[in-house]
Amino acid sequence: MIKKNNISVCFSTDQFEKYSDGKSTVVIVDLLRATSVISVAFECGIESVIPVKTLKEALKYKNIENHIIAAERNTLPIDGFDYGNSPYHYLDSDVKGKTLVLTTTNGTRAIHLAKEHKVITASFVNLDAVVKYLINDNNDVIILCSGWKGLFNLEDPILAGAISEKLLNSNSFLSNCDSMRASIQLYSKGKSDLFGYLSKSAYRNRNKSEGVIKDTRFCLNPTIKSSIVPIFTNGKLIKS
Amino acid sequence: MIKKNNISVCFSTDQFEKYSDGKSTVVIVDLLRATSVISVAFECGIESVIPVKTLKEALKYKNIENHIIAAERNTLPIDGFDYGNSPYHYLDSDVKGKTLVLTTTNGTRAIHLAKEHKVITASFVNLDAVVKYLINDNNDVIILCSGWKGLFNLEDPILAGAISEKLLNSNSFLSNCDSMRASIQLYSKGKSDLFGYLSKSAYRNRNKSEGVIKDTRFCLNPTIKSSIVPIFTNGKLIKS
Repeated sequence: MIKKNNISVCFSTDQFEKYSDGKSTVVIVDLLRATSVISVAFECGIESVIPVKTLKEALKYKNIENHIIAAERNTLPIDGFDYGNSPYHYLDSDVKGKTLVLTTTNGTRAIHLAKEHKVITASFVNLDAVVKYLINDNNDVIILCSGWKGLFNLEDPILAGAISEKLLNSNSFLSNCDSMRASIQLYSKGKSDLFGYLSKSAYRNRNKSEGVIKDTRFCLNPTIKSSIVPIFTNGKLIKS
Repeated sequence: MIKKNNISVCFSTDQFEKYSDGKSTVVIVDLLRATSVISVAFECGIESVIPVKTLKEALKYKNIENHIIAAERNTLPIDGFDYGNSPYHYLDSDVKGKTLVLTTTNGTRAIHLAKEHKVITASFVNLDAVVKYLINDNNDVIILCSGWKGLFNLEDPILAGAISEKLLNSNSFLSNCDSMRASIQLYSKGKSDLFGYLSKSAYRNRNKSEGVIKDTRFCLNPTIKSSIVPIFTNGKLIKS
């Protein structure tokens, strides 16, 4: 019998230390919007993404040639930065060959938290590529939902559920993780209309602007797909 | 407009400090099995329940008249104790007027964790009574899922969802809590067949004995109901 690999889902960065084993491949999910933006940026030709924790750290790259700095805090863009946290910034610009320096409320923190592991980032933009990568990777998987300031959010488990379901269907994985099971249940409740499903979520309640609503629709049902799986190596996300 | 009270759901004891406000009423849920056992014990005539954190603490009550000591660790009963953590121990015995001293893996810990608040315990046995109590109580509510060793479990959010749904339907409550929304979704996925819904849960995987399976069926679909809401006062749960 071929050994199956394990899947766990961690619902928030605050609980990651209980899941961390230093060996599993960690999939970072910050669906609205950091890991969706990262997928889109790569698909639009960005060469690498440097996720940084603080605005100050990001600003150090401001005048370095070929670098774009982007920031979001509490869903708002920040003065002095080239971009905020919208996928449309990358779809509508020429970013080919550039390096993106990105700092967001939850997603970039999650990437750094897991950096003792092999870390990749996932979104609905690169879902199929991530699943293919994980099957070939032949390693245990921890899906780390970035959540909201250390707490559970409703949106990240949806993607965690979509990834988990596909991995289980591949017959190469198993799981005894209740949060993984809950993620699959939540995804199955929401998948026919993800935007409607999230209509009462805390994220949607915080974000009523036309711009973020447009971004949300995109992240849930992206109009582009990407076969790129960003992997965190030496402080940068690069194409795996 | 009448002010509505707030509902939050905390998925694990490890995250309670992020929800705790010192003011809300906290509803402890340890569906399998501590809070179900507590409901049954009261319904069978127990006068009060002393939840203690350690086996050693519980054993101090061993030879005190009119006290029953009950313990469970990792779902197993413990040598030297009168009872384990099964509702049938109370249904099948005469416990009228006695005091139950109880220590379990997760539930009793959760009660102590929240003791700066008004604390009550809930199960499917006393669900309707708890909902009525909370509506009359006219206070914000935090439903604290005991979870499993600080982590999310699949069973407690089911009851959290059932309570939340009834509170929202009363029109006296509102919520902007994503884990509350997820609980309602999970309850709605499972409610037509709770035992089947939990068939792949970590709890069911850990507990294959006939006795625990019988207990599980009872806790999910109890054959008795109770109108007693246990409330934690001066180190004891008593009838509210």
